[in-house]
Amino acid sequence: MIGWAADLFPICRSITGNGVRETLSYLKERALPHLKLHEVPSGTRAFDWTVPDEWNVRDAFVADGCGRRVIDFKKNNLHLVGYSEPVDTFIGLDELQKHLHSLPDQPDAIPYVTSYYRRTWGFCVSENERQRLAPGTYRVVVDSTLAPGNLTYGEMVLPGTESSEVLISTYVCHPSMANNELSGPVVAAALARWVASLSGRRHTYRIVFIPETIGSLVYLSRHVGTMRKKTIAGFVVTCVGDERAWSFMPSRLGGTLADRVALNFLRHYASSFKSYSFLERGSDERQYCSPGVDLPIVSVMRSKYATYPEYHTSLDDMGLISARGLWDSFEMYRRCILALEKNRFYRVTCCGEPQLGRRGLYPHVSTKKTRGTMAAMMNAIAYCDGSHDMIQIADMLGCPADTLYELFDTLLAAGVLAIA
Amino acid sequence: MIGWAADLFPICRSITGNGVRETLSYLKERALPHLKLHEVPSGTRAFDWTVPDEWNVRDAFVADGCGRRVIDFKKNNLHLVGYSEPVDTFIGLDELQKHLHSLPDQPDAIPYVTSYYRRTWGFCVSENERQRLAPGTYRVVVDSTLAPGNLTYGEMVLPGTESSEVLISTYVCHPSMANNELSGPVVAAALARWVASLSGRRHTYRIVFIPETIGSLVYLSRHVGTMRKKTIAGFVVTCVGDERAWSFMPSRLGGTLADRVALNFLRHYASSFKSYSFLERGSDERQYCSPGVDLPIVSVMRSKYATYPEYHTSLDDMGLISARGLWDSFEMYRRCILALEKNRFYRVTCCGEPQLGRRGLYPHVSTKKTRGTMAAMMNAIAYCDGSHDMIQIADMLGCPADTLYELFDTLLAAGVLAIA
Amino acid sequence: MIGWAADLFPICRSITGNGVRETLSYLKERALPHLKLHEVPSGTRAFDWTVPDEWNVRDAFVADGCGRRVIDFKKNNLHLVGYSEPVDTFIGLDELQKHLHSLPDQPDAIPYVTSYYRRTWGFCVSENERQRLAPGTYRVVVDSTLAPGNLTYGEMVLPGTESSEVLISTYVCHPSMANNELSGPVVAAALARWVASLSGRRHTYRIVFIPETIGSLVYLSRHVGTMRKKTIAGFVVTCVGDERAWSFMPSRLGGTLADRVALNFLRHYASSFKSYSFLERGSDERQYCSPGVDLPIVSVMRSKYATYPEYHTSLDDMGLISARGLWDSFEMYRRCILALEKNRFYRVTCCGEPQLGRRGLYPHVSTKKTRGTMAAMMNAIAYCDGSHDMIQIADMLGCPADTLYELFDTLLAAGVLAIA
Repeated sequence: MIGWAADLFPICRSITGNGVRETLSYLKERALPHLKLHEVPSGTRAFDWTVPDEWNVRDAFVADGCGRRVIDFKKNNLHLVGYSEPVDTFIGLDELQKHLHSLPDQPDAIPYVTSYYRRTWGFCVSENERQRLAPGTYRVVVDSTLAPGNLTYGEMVLPGTESSEVLISTYVCHPSMANNELSGPVVAAALARWVASLSGRRHTYRIVFIPETIGSLVYLSRHVGTMRKKTIAGFVVTCVGDERAWSFMPSRLGGTLADRVALNFLRHYASSFKSYSFLERGSDERQYCSPGVDLPIVSVMRSKYATYPEYHTSLDDMGLISARGLWDSFEMYRRCILALEKNRFYRVTCCGEPQLGRRGLYPHVSTKKTRGTMAAMMNAIAYCDGSHDMIQIADMLGCPADTLYELFDTLLAAGVLAIA
Repeated sequence: MIGWAADLFPICRSITGNGVRETLSYLKERALPHLKLHEVPSGTRAFDWTVPDEWNVRDAFVADGCGRRVIDFKKNNLHLVGYSEPVDTFIGLDELQKHLHSLPDQPDAIPYVTSYYRRTWGFCVSENERQRLAPGTYRVVVDSTLAPGNLTYGEMVLPGTESSEVLISTYVCHPSMANNELSGPVVAAALARWVASLSGRRHTYRIVFIPETIGSLVYLSRHVGTMRKKTIAGFVVTCVGDERAWSFMPSRLGGTLADRVALNFLRHYASSFKSYSFLERGSDERQYCSPGVDLPIVSVMRSKYATYPEYHTSLDDMGLISARGLWDSFEMYRRCILALEKNRFYRVTCCGEPQLGRRGLYPHVSTKKTRGTMAAMMNAIAYCDGSHDMIQIADMLGCPADTLYELFDTLLAAGVLAIA
Repeated sequence: MIGWAADLFPICRSITGNGVRETLSYLKERALPHLKLHEVPSGTRAFDWTVPDEWNVRDAFVADGCGRRVIDFKKNNLHLVGYSEPVDTFIGLDELQKHLHSLPDQPDAIPYVTSYYRRTWGFCVSENERQRLAPGTYRVVVDSTLAPGNLTYGEMVLPGTESSEVLISTYVCHPSMANNELSGPVVAAALARWVASLSGRRHTYRIVFIPETIGSLVYLSRHVGTMRKKTIAGFVVTCVGDERAWSFMPSRLGGTLADRVALNFLRHYASSFKSYSFLERGSDERQYCSPGVDLPIVSVMRSKYATYPEYHTSLDDMGLISARGLWDSFEMYRRCILALEKNRFYRVTCCGEPQLGRRGLYPHVSTKKTRGTMAAMMNAIAYCDGSHDMIQIADMLGCPADTLYELFDTLLAAGVLAIA
């Protein structure tokens, strides 16, 4: 995953354009042969929104009187305000300042700024660079095209044996930043590969690589009917690359299967985690969980967007994420997905407790000590009443759900339990 | 309000009689031209109760051997036990003592005592005065009438455009005491004036000035059918004159619209407040919230009855209340009523988030900073699912409901929201 | 109760056999003439279980080379592993060790060990005794029979005037141990005697003296249909003899009438108590509360099984329990049962508060003080809405349910309340 991220880092992505295509093609070639790329024409309606013109940049710079590039898109694509319209002109420093963005509090950081829905152009620089600009005339060149074209997204649908669906969604519209957001696409790609390899998969997995907001709206506008009917849980995979924190974003009203499975594992496998309020959301759960759509979608994150100092600046670079950070995030999601595959409502097949002894499941000599040993098994059975699923039972027992798989498989095989 | 209170303070009010009429006439003349006075004959049944005989007092005193009035109703109407029957006799001090009430722990206070439903007579004096009574013969005169007449109450019904009703109830049966209870009638009168001036009023307001207990029972016995069907919220306005505390009395089981609106504003606009249990109730919510009636009625109070030392004594005088205390109480109730007028269930008109940018509701250039600015708007929209009303949304957002009016009006005008 | 316990202590009880019969016959003669003994043949199915062969022991010992009994069942029946099969042989110390059980951490205690469902034999000794065993040849004799016979249980069904049932269950399968478990049978016997004496009993009481687990399963297999339909509450009476603690075991999901009544009284009459999780259960609620059976059964205990050091050892002897411990437990259960008899849903017969004064239920002169006095009565009435039962009302009022009996009887007699 860290290798993919390194390769993809330099590409200039936005909500449309060749950067997105290049990113998706890379993932298709290296990891996801079945990834399907979709092109959605500019002007297409998606609920309240419209797919904007496609944006591509060949070059962009600000040069001083000597022709020296003092701000250069080719050095860092964050220098150019996203969706800047073409321009080629000479202006004074005062006029130029009106088009510059910097962060006085973080003088070394280039901020990430976009203007998707209002035509303008601008450059982002570090405060230090900005201070160094001398009065004089500057040549400003944005060699971009902003014209009808397409929005591109990637989709994999991995069918399962049952009608239920799980959504994995990540976004591919961020230029050169690492935690937010190359971590999401590479972890989602690794998950997709692993889900594809799952034999006897129960659920259908809808795995989408989309530009944020407009991409999820476009995708929903095409599939919301099915998704609303079939989705049992889903995840927006974002900010999963660093090692500094675990974060949880619940669904709009909480308590869904997605909330429950993620919280069960975070409680047991994250050293600690911060549970945010839905009021602090900021990714595609804004669309997936919106009223009328209301899918059971959550995010398990490391350092959450808008909470860490490097967020949405050039400081969110490859040094911020790590192979270990990506891997642990992948593992946490893999656990959630496996639990969704394993999760069932069980019921015990007899009245009263089953006689485990004659099935070889109970120690023959009852001592003070063996009582404790059998407690977990009997406790699990005690809640197999057809109205608590495996994840709820794990929560009632205070254990991670994956410690129950073998137990439930054994009891199922022994005929003590049945699927409810 | 403080002027009305000062004028009304000396009047001898009780659950029936000319003091009530005088008080209501004063309010009708000075503030509420549309106040309607109702007379209900003695003997009229009101559920389990019967309207008692009407009581009026011309004079009452205890005079010593020299004919000097040692206890004089004309000096303070609290001196006479409410509903004392007529008497004109000479008795010794020992016999007199049996008819006296005082408070050893508050030696300067004249207690407030009534005996509405058992015929007797009595006088209330400060413990200090009582100690000064010398042995000897006293003349006792209660020049009262206690005979079939009427119970008098005032009522204003201010119609609204919808079928929903709001109840504002206060009581006019307390003689010369200020916080409990001239503050209630004067704040309720000010509210009535303000509600009358509300243009485009949605709800019908039923504003009643009644004697406590028997008055609310009489009123309910006439209107409970309609009230039960239509009342969405209501308030018993009592103990709203001092500045020492904010207090809250919930409805019988809590959680009604009245509870929610009052708590929302108390949380944000009261520096602190004490939330009492319904077990500690003691005013007309006893009738309005009784099983079988069960209206959604609460009280927002300042120092609650039965909790402050001056309660039900002559120390609860005009010095205890203030213009500011009355005004702040009025303001708190006005906020509640306005929120009831504004409160709606909204639903967002599209799937996914609305595109606020093209409606001029969203900043065009997205920076780190603008994200925060828009959060409140998007958070409010996120809960406009047709099943949370505005007050619930304010609670979810952790803000006072009245900070959302402009926002919701804007979104409604922009077509982003619709009334659910 | 302490006398019964002393008499019954030496008997060697197990899940079947003459010790159970002897115990039940004793209780029938001394306390419960209507106790009915049932014999259930070995091999009878009870849900997932089968009644095992009957076990009886004439003698059992281990003798050293000199013929001296170094372990002797006649000295303490805990010395023999429950359900030991017959044996009469000479073996060396090494071989003998494989059949010995002791507790290194409690060197003076003989542990209690059973092997109901796998044929074996064994002896239990204190660690100290075990250390004293010298190498050499030992004669081992278990003069037992383990053959088709019967499982014996005792049952009393005390009919009531309504169709509701209450279960009282205790177990009679433990050999010479006092708190767990002679305390249960003797307290249950005392309760049975008292319930039998209750005139005008509303509920039917099903009082059973059974071997643990297999006994409750056998009993359920015969009666579960009726019990599931009619049981409103029940108690597993166990570990009710010592004075060191109060403990509470809830029903499987909590919140039943049995949970509510027990918690109401524990809160008010136990100096303190520990509320355990259902995960920590370990008696016949394992069967009664199992999915599919799901009776509303709880346990009020003193020192709970598996929590006190003497548990399941010879140290749980008559010195551990006391007449006072048994009596207080009896009292607590008696309170619960009486509350179940008294418990009703009430509704107030009028709208608004009833006029208690004209019924002689309210002081005629209203002073500051009388307000407080009447609060309890008015508070109780305020929740008589037909949807809260007496025990819920007690919880809402923060008082033990039995302080409300007289009040509700008075209000019922006065026609203020009616049964809902």
